[in-house]
Parts: sequence; structure tokens; C-alpha cells
Amino acid sequence: MNFYTRKLIKPGDLNSNNTLFGGTLLKWIDEEAAIYAIIQLGTGNCVTKFMSEIDFVRSPRQGDIIELGIKAIKFGTTSLTLACQVRNKIDHSIILTIDKIVFVTVDASGKPVPHGKTAITYTDPRLKEE
Amino acid sequence: MNFYTRKLIKPGDLNSNNTLFGGTLLKWIDEEAAIYAIIQLGTGNCVTKFMSEIDFVRSPRQGDIIELGIKAIKFGTTSLTLACQVRNKIDHSIILTIDKIVFVTVDASGKPVPHGKTAITYTDPRLKEE
Amino acid sequence: MNFYTRKLIKPGDLNSNNTLFGGTLLKWIDEEAAIYAIIQLGTGNCVTKFMSEIDFVRSPRQGDIIELGIKAIKFGTTSLTLACQVRNKIDHSIILTIDKIVFVTVDASGKPVPHGKTAITYTDPRLKEE
Amino acid sequence: MNFYTRKLIKPGDLNSNNTLFGGTLLKWIDEEAAIYAIIQLGTGNCVTKFMSEIDFVRSPRQGDIIELGIKAIKFGTTSLTLACQVRNKIDHSIILTIDKIVFVTVDASGKPVPHGKTAITYTDPRLKEE
Amino acid sequence: MNFYTRKLIKPGDLNSNNTLFGGTLLKWIDEEAAIYAIIQLGTGNCVTKFMSEIDFVRSPRQGDIIELGIKAIKFGTTSLTLACQVRNKIDHSIILTIDKIVFVTVDASGKPVPHGKTAITYTDPRLKEE
Amino acid sequence: MNFYTRKLIKPGDLNSNNTLFGGTLLKWIDEEAAIYAIIQLGTGNCVTKFMSEIDFVRSPRQGDIIELGIKAIKFGTTSLTLACQVRNKIDHSIILTIDKIVFVTVDASGKPVPHGKTAITYTDPRLKEE
Repeated sequence: MNFYTRKLIKPGDLNSNNTLFGGTLLKWIDEEAAIYAIIQLGTGNCVTKFMSEIDFVRSPRQGDIIELGIKAIKFGTTSLTLACQVRNKIDHSIILTIDKIVFVTVDASGKPVPHGKTAITYTDPRLKEE
Repeated sequence: MNFYTRKLIKPGDLNSNNTLFGGTLLKWIDEEAAIYAIIQLGTGNCVTKFMSEIDFVRSPRQGDIIELGIKAIKFGTTSLTLACQVRNKIDHSIILTIDKIVFVTVDASGKPVPHGKTAITYTDPRLKEE
Repeated sequence: MNFYTRKLIKPGDLNSNNTLFGGTLLKWIDEEAAIYAIIQLGTGNCVTKFMSEIDFVRSPRQGDIIELGIKAIKFGTTSLTLACQVRNKIDHSIILTIDKIVFVTVDASGKPVPHGKTAITYTDPRLKEE
Repeated sequence: MNFYTRKLIKPGDLNSNNTLFGGTLLKWIDEEAAIYAIIQLGTGNCVTKFMSEIDFVRSPRQGDIIELGIKAIKFGTTSLTLACQVRNKIDHSIILTIDKIVFVTVDASGKPVPHGKTAITYTDPRLKEE
Repeated sequence: MNFYTRKLIKPGDLNSNNTLFGGTLLKWIDEEAAIYAIIQLGTGNCVTKFMSEIDFVRSPRQGDIIELGIKAIKFGTTSLTLACQVRNKIDHSIILTIDKIVFVTVDASGKPVPHGKTAITYTDPRLKEE
Repeated sequence: MNFYTRKLIKPGDLNSNNTLFGGTLLKWIDEEAAIYAIIQLGTGNCVTKFMSEIDFVRSPRQGDIIELGIKAIKFGTTSLTLACQVRNKIDHSIILTIDKIVFVTVDASGKPVPHGKTAITYTDPRLKEE
């Protein structure tokens, strides 16, 4: 799994307990997963369809830097399944994991359409994984 | 299940396809669930620990009004399990369901502590459900 | 008056004195009132026209949960007048009251048009008030 | 009345009708009034206490530039009363007026305290009004 | 140079060190400069093309009030060059300076077009500078 | 130069011309540069001190995916100089370049202090550049 987008936890990101607001983290993950899906599927016409269980392992605090990792794990006919892990950038401790996030390519009316893709496109060849 | 908080979909809430950005919806749900948990547990010292599968059934559009329903389904010793449903306020069509959102009461160091609650508190008696 | 939408006060909602920023509260109220008006009037083509005096009774702090109550008090030909109260969800202490918020239904050019409604629609019959 | 702060209406500021969301405008006004009050009272320990009737005359659209005018109209012992007008920057058409916004200086516990001011301080002498 | 727009530093504006987040300040400056350019050029069809060196002299803290000054310094055929200074509203200590911010008027395809302006329009004659 | 953080342009990110608001882009860059600086300097006690000229080459539109590249180019005693490039993720067309962004490590009072670092730390060895 490759980690791209990073976030620095600022006061505006906190919940009322002064740890990272879980909803803000979910918003960041959905955006990052959407970006990954659009790149792999070659189209912006795709929507989040399903997320499997989300395990919140640890709560980041103000000043922490976190990084979001996404990996394609299955190409269906109209769908793409991703896995996600969020970890602390410095010590790599796990913050959250999601085994499956499913995107589906849709037409203008929202109906699923085939995307024709079957394998991960590595936009940076150095980051290719077996 | 009772439905409280409502949201009106505005341009700033949309993804690049002009439907509701899924991450924004997840953020709203986590806030609503946290509010419900804090009320039931009688303490703000609680954190999101787990979400079960999330099924995105339908994408709202600009101008739609949606409502968020939450219901406590299990009181553990240190945890509270909620169910969530989001639907269109006008026609009640389902937008998203989550079977389980688990909150845990924690002490200042983040360690789980018993909350002592065993049943739903109905802040509005008219909304009591069997 | 029924109370629906709730808000949890987080660091990003505060003014420079670390109490709830009044402007943020007004933004929440206008959204909630707009939602109520759209539901009652059966159209999204309505705009805020007038607010009567706003009395800021008490300033919420980080971690407080507040709830927003709205009630229709007068159906005009092209207008709908609402009353609003914001209170602490836990102890019901009053935070703010507004006696009248007036919405007007408009056509595409912004000209007032009759809405044809004369009484409150209770979307949840259990919440009907005399 | 002098006009300082200006705003450019962008997509993220709109309501679901694609005109300026009233709540966003109220948020801007409350911030501008708070800034004016802090400057006049010489302390950040002041809170919005009251707003008189708000008349929404006209709805700005995307791309419009608006300007916010504030003027002190009465110095009380612990309070300061402001008037507010919002208008289109280009053609000066009125968007909104508020006759009275009252700020009160408070101590750490929120109790009103005298502020000792009796007249407007013009930070720019060229803008002094009779 | 005239100073218009003011900002009050609130918790949501801070970086993880609890001083004003530099990115938030840059966002405010770009909006203010865009507003100034649109007023001078008489058209909203203009885009930021260039900023010269930015010197961050001092970091504001929560509760500070800052003001943004902009002045047109050169009218080109398709461009307008502005200077910018941000300072503390109370003690006038400098926070940031930018010698040149260049806007260009463009047509629908983004191609530069002449704007026909040659001198500053003072919307408030009292603020005219030699 | 390595590219990490990506952004998907959504309606809430646009200026009144429906292209990416330059101020939003500057905010993203400053956050990304701060994250890079914190990782390299091993401390969160660092602030943006200077940015060299910013060249806005092209304006992204709704639905575009952009990526932000940062590279350390000089380690001073108390400072770190970075270069920045923003480009379209799909076709690699340049959106913006900044030759120098200077961060300085500071103590609690804001005074520069030595950071003791002399070379880039590659958190992912596959991304090491000559």
C-alpha cells in the first residue's frame, strides 16, 4: 500500500475532546479514495457505494501528521474495491483501517456502467508493488 | 428510530459530480452519532471506536433535505452501540444505512471506563419507542 | 415548539473568547429555519426576508450540545412566519430566542408568489402540538 | 457610516437556490460587528447581546461584491450599540439593514463590566463623520 | 495604501502551534486582492497571475485583529499590479508584505484581453491618495 | 521532486469564475509545505518565513485532480528552504511553481533556533532522488 496525502491536525479539525474529530477523518478518507478511484477508472463519473467495517484504533491529537494509504484490491465490471489505512506519519502507528471501499462507475442517470479496467495503473513506476 | 438533525444540500456540500460529497455525509453522521452518544452516556468523554458496513444507497442532490436517524441498540459496560439511517426528508427514500456505530467512554488517558448506563433515555417522552 | 437539529460545540465553532461564535449560531439558525420553511411550503423557492429582535441570553462553550427549535406561527399569502428558540440540550437553559423569522416564496425573478399553504404539516404525527 | 470589509460571493457561499445563503451573511456581519466593537471598547472581552430586526432587502448572487458598514450609535456603561448596513459595492443597492446590534463587555465569568468609553475612536481620521 | 477588510483571529484559523495558519492568511489576501482588482478593472473576468516575494514578518495570535491593505501600483494593457500589506489593526505592526500581485483580465477561454483602465478609481473620495 | 498530497476540485473550492480560487490553492500549498518542513526538521515548532515569486500558470476547473510536489533544496542553521510545484495529476501540466518557501525553527517566544539537520530524510527509500 502506498501513502500519499498527508494532513496536519489543526485546532479547526478537533472534536470537543480536543482529539481529531472522527467525521473530519472520514471526510478526508472519502476524498482520497475518490481521487484514487478516479485515477484508476479514468473517469470522474464514479460514486462511493459501500464501505466495510471501520476500526478507529487511535485518536490523533493537535500537531500530529497523519498519512492516508489506499490500494486497489479488486477490479469488477462496473466497480473498483479499495483498501484503506491511515497511520501516523512519524511513528507509523495505525489510526484507522477499512478493508473495502467500493466505487462504481455510473452514467448521467446514476446507472452502473462498465469501466473496462482490470489492473492498477501506477502513476509513479517506483511505487509499483508486487 | 427517531430522526432529528436535518441538512439542506448546498453547493458547498457537493462533490465534483454535483451530488452530495460522501465525505461530507459521513462527517454529519459522525457528529450526530457523537451527540446521541454523549446524551445517552451522560458524558462528553467518549470516542467513535467502530462503524460496521456503510451502504450508500442513493446520492442526494442540491436542494434536497435529508434527515439523520440514530437509535441505541446495545449498552455494553464501557460501550454503546448505535444504528443509523439517513433518508430524504420529503419522500423518505433511504440514502444510507449503518447497522452499528460503537462509542466507548474513556478516561483522560483514552482508556475505556464503565459508563453505568443500561437503557435509552428519551429526552422527549413522545418519541419513546417500544 | 419541537426541537430537531442538534449541534456539538467544537473548537472550530468558537470566537476568540472561546465561547460559541454568535455568527456561527446565526448561520445554523438560518439553515434550520430554511429547512423548516421548505418543508412547510413544499418548495425550495423561498428566501429569508426578515428576522425580528434576537436576544443572546447565554453563550455556549466547547463540549456543550445545543438544540434548535422552530415553529410556524403564521401563514400569509406569500409568506410564512416562524418562531425560533435555541437551548442547551441537557439542562434546557435558553441560549437565544427570535420571535419572528419571515420566509417568502418567490419565482425565478425573485418576485413573491402565493404558496397556497394555511396550516402546519407535521411530518411526525407524534410531535403534533395544539 | 463607513464601509470596510468586503466579500466576493463564491459558489461555497450560496444556498440551494444559488443566491447568497442568509446564514453566511449573518456570520459575516457578526464577525465584522465584533471587530468594530473590540476596536471601540479596547477589549476582546465583549459578546453579542442583542440584534434588532433584520431586513433582507435583496439577495446577492455569485460574483457580486458586497461591503459591510458598521457605526457606533450609543455608548452605554457596559454596552455599545452599533448600526449595520450591507450593500452592493458597485451600485450601492441595499442588501440588508440592522438598526441595533448591542455588545456588552464582560468579565471572565460573563458578568457585564463598565468599559469606560463614551465616543467613537476613528482609527483613520479621514473617515471621521459628523 | 488604504486598509479595508479586517479579520479577527479565531481558533478555527490557527495552525498546530496556535498562531495564525499562514495558508489561511494567504487565502484572505488573495480574496481581498481579487475584490480590489474586480472593482478597478470593472469586470469579474480576471485571475491571479503572479505574486512577488512574500515576507512573513510576524505571526498573529488568537484574539488579534488584522487589516489588509491593497493599492494599485501599475495598470498594464491586460494586467493590473497591486501591492499588499497586512498589519495589526491596533498597533499597526507589520505582519506581511507583498510588493506585487498581478491580475490579468481574460476572456471565456482564459486568454488575456485589454481592460482599458489607466488609473485608480477611488470609490470613497476621502480615501484618495497622492 | 516527489508529489504526495492530491486534491479533487469541488464546487466549494471555486472562485466566482468557476475556476479554482487561488487563495484555496495557496492554503493547500502552505499546509503541504508545513507538513514537509515538520517531517524534515523533526519539530512542529517551525513557521513560514518567506515565499519567493509565485507563478500561476493555469487555472484548474471542477473535477480536476491536482498534486502538490515539495522538495527541500537548502538546509540553513535555523531555516529550511523548499521548492514547490503544483501540477495536474492526469496530464502533468504545470499549474503553479514557487522556487523558494523558507521555514524557520523557533522557540516558544518565536526566536529562531538551530535545528541541527543537514540533509533530506526520505521516509520512503523508493522515492530517494539523486
